[in-house]
Amino acid sequence: MRIVNVPLGSRSYRIWVGSGILDRLGKECRRLGLASGPCAVITDEHVHPLYAAPVEASLKQAGYNPVVIPIPAGEASKCLKRVEVCCERLAGWRLERKSFIVALGGGVVGDLAGFVAATYLRGIPFVQVPTTLLAQVDSSVGGKVGVNLKAGKNLVGAFHQPRLVLCDLETLQTLPPRELHAGLAEVIKYGAIYDAALFRRLERQLDCLLAVDLKAWEPLVARCCAIKAEVVAQDETESGRRAILNFGHTIGHAIEAVSGYGRYLHGEAIAMGMVAEAWLSVQNTGLLPKDARRLKQLLAAAGLPTHYSLTAARWQRLLETMRLDKKVSQGQIQFVLLPALGRAQWGQALAPEQIRKVLEQLPENEVSPASAE
Amino acid sequence: MRIVNVPLGSRSYRIWVGSGILDRLGKECRRLGLASGPCAVITDEHVHPLYAAPVEASLKQAGYNPVVIPIPAGEASKCLKRVEVCCERLAGWRLERKSFIVALGGGVVGDLAGFVAATYLRGIPFVQVPTTLLAQVDSSVGGKVGVNLKAGKNLVGAFHQPRLVLCDLETLQTLPPRELHAGLAEVIKYGAIYDAALFRRLERQLDCLLAVDLKAWEPLVARCCAIKAEVVAQDETESGRRAILNFGHTIGHAIEAVSGYGRYLHGEAIAMGMVAEAWLSVQNTGLLPKDARRLKQLLAAAGLPTHYSLTAARWQRLLETMRLDKKVSQGQIQFVLLPALGRAQWGQALAPEQIRKVLEQLPENEVSPASAE
Repeated sequence: MRIVNVPLGSRSYRIWVGSGILDRLGKECRRLGLASGPCAVITDEHVHPLYAAPVEASLKQAGYNPVVIPIPAGEASKCLKRVEVCCERLAGWRLERKSFIVALGGGVVGDLAGFVAATYLRGIPFVQVPTTLLAQVDSSVGGKVGVNLKAGKNLVGAFHQPRLVLCDLETLQTLPPRELHAGLAEVIKYGAIYDAALFRRLERQLDCLLAVDLKAWEPLVARCCAIKAEVVAQDETESGRRAILNFGHTIGHAIEAVSGYGRYLHGEAIAMGMVAEAWLSVQNTGLLPKDARRLKQLLAAAGLPTHYSLTAARWQRLLETMRLDKKVSQGQIQFVLLPALGRAQWGQALAPEQIRKVLEQLPENEVSPASAE
Repeated sequence: MRIVNVPLGSRSYRIWVGSGILDRLGKECRRLGLASGPCAVITDEHVHPLYAAPVEASLKQAGYNPVVIPIPAGEASKCLKRVEVCCERLAGWRLERKSFIVALGGGVVGDLAGFVAATYLRGIPFVQVPTTLLAQVDSSVGGKVGVNLKAGKNLVGAFHQPRLVLCDLETLQTLPPRELHAGLAEVIKYGAIYDAALFRRLERQLDCLLAVDLKAWEPLVARCCAIKAEVVAQDETESGRRAILNFGHTIGHAIEAVSGYGRYLHGEAIAMGMVAEAWLSVQNTGLLPKDARRLKQLLAAAGLPTHYSLTAARWQRLLETMRLDKKVSQGQIQFVLLPALGRAQWGQALAPEQIRKVLEQLPENEVSPASAE
């Protein structure tokens, strides 16, 4: 088992990464001083039959009185209506200011339950127990929580740090392969933006990882959490540096929105976004074309889509969606670009025309060296 | 005009109190560095025809592009559904992270718009322009924002400080008398918990105040804001000291809830709650019975109800509601009590039986000296 510290002053917390550690939850909550009495486990209908019972048992054994609140699986649950339903349940179960919530599930559960925790009684503690790769390496760490609007994803939310993150790697064994691949997109992202050695390791170990070798996964998940923790600690509320975590997301989020949520998984959309933004990096920040190709190859080998077919109508909707992104500043679409594999910089505003051209040229997998200057 | 500082470190802000100062809004927003471009004014259908036009004009003159979002008047608008409607409008008007919201109206508008500002894009700046006495002396200062659940008031919310509070006293001239009286309940509360001289001044000047003499109101509103600012600065997120502002609220909130929101105004319910909690103070913290009577007399002279008729069924519902209060800790009902007029202490847990007895004895206006020991 590995422990990663997230150093955020009075809001610091630990991430536990290991196999078969779910039953430690209750004891660890006690050790953190989380108040005895009622608490809540928010989970979804897929995860509920798999892991709710051991989580509930662990909490009960530690003297808590948990209510399990299952929500429908899928992105549609990330809405204010569902926040309301959950909060009414918490009130009915008599959760108080010092009570806590456990988010047991993937990114949707974590984001929703985290937002419920951030706003119920103006904020109560919560614990993340992520059960998907994506949630373990990304959404459960860093305190960004929220729900979607019709107008776009994550447009309503808060910064609310968990008190503990407990990543039980055994949950990866019950994860559908498509979800594992989608999570790999974010793992690859960490290599691309922050850690070239991690990127090379992924190129080498991809087969073990796809075969869900938990021994191979443990150091990787811990490393991804550590990278995210480092970046978040530098910039908790995303005024600047933290934005590098959004590599691939400016275009990826827009693809997700335009395709209708559910068509692509988040990681799949981000994979396509990263390939496009890698080529924008070739044009604007000097990323080597061969490294843009390596990124594309790794994503493809991980079973991820790397190209989004553009039509005129789709482009208009993509552009409109990008202009609504939270990261837009003074109407300009901002990007995270890579000067090299393993390094990222935030805050490059690019003209729509350049974005469109890169998306159109993706099928050819590269931009000609001439236009790359 | 008077200016009150709210010293909260990087979240510090100023409260302007004066007559006819609404048209300074735009210029002051510029001076604070609030980003040009789109912004939003959230207001209700009562305030909209009175003050939206000058506020909009002032913002436009300062180079902003405001959208006015009117909501239905009344407590029912403080719900997550309305938050969603407002956020969708903000997204449609292209508000960005550095854009801001103006809350123009009473407590409902301020609490709702503040919560929208706290959560849209995980938090954007907002400015309070309170147009009721209650909002000017209480809800617009201190950063508590939120909405109601079926299970109770303000059960979902956040701490989100405004960047500026602009109290134009002329808005008091268009306030229905009943609303003015309800606001006076909170003004009287400040005297009772914090400032005996203010309490005596209210006893002396009540006639001028009820006649809406703005000259008399200006120092009073400023003093109330200053008291609230002092208390909030000591304890921004209500871990202790700030709770003294809830004098009268443990019982008052429950009366509001049990009567069905709308039967009593907030200030009216708090007036009844304060009288009851004053007698609990006589019994538990040594408040002089004559001072409990003075409090009751002042509230009655201000046109406020001071007694809530108790039936067995009502008592059961009151008790259940008090047990759901955010301030409940480990199942115990907590009170703010007065050792003397002008001083308050937080954190006295009282047995339901004692609360019930005091509520039953209120018609007689006092507890006999024997039972007060």
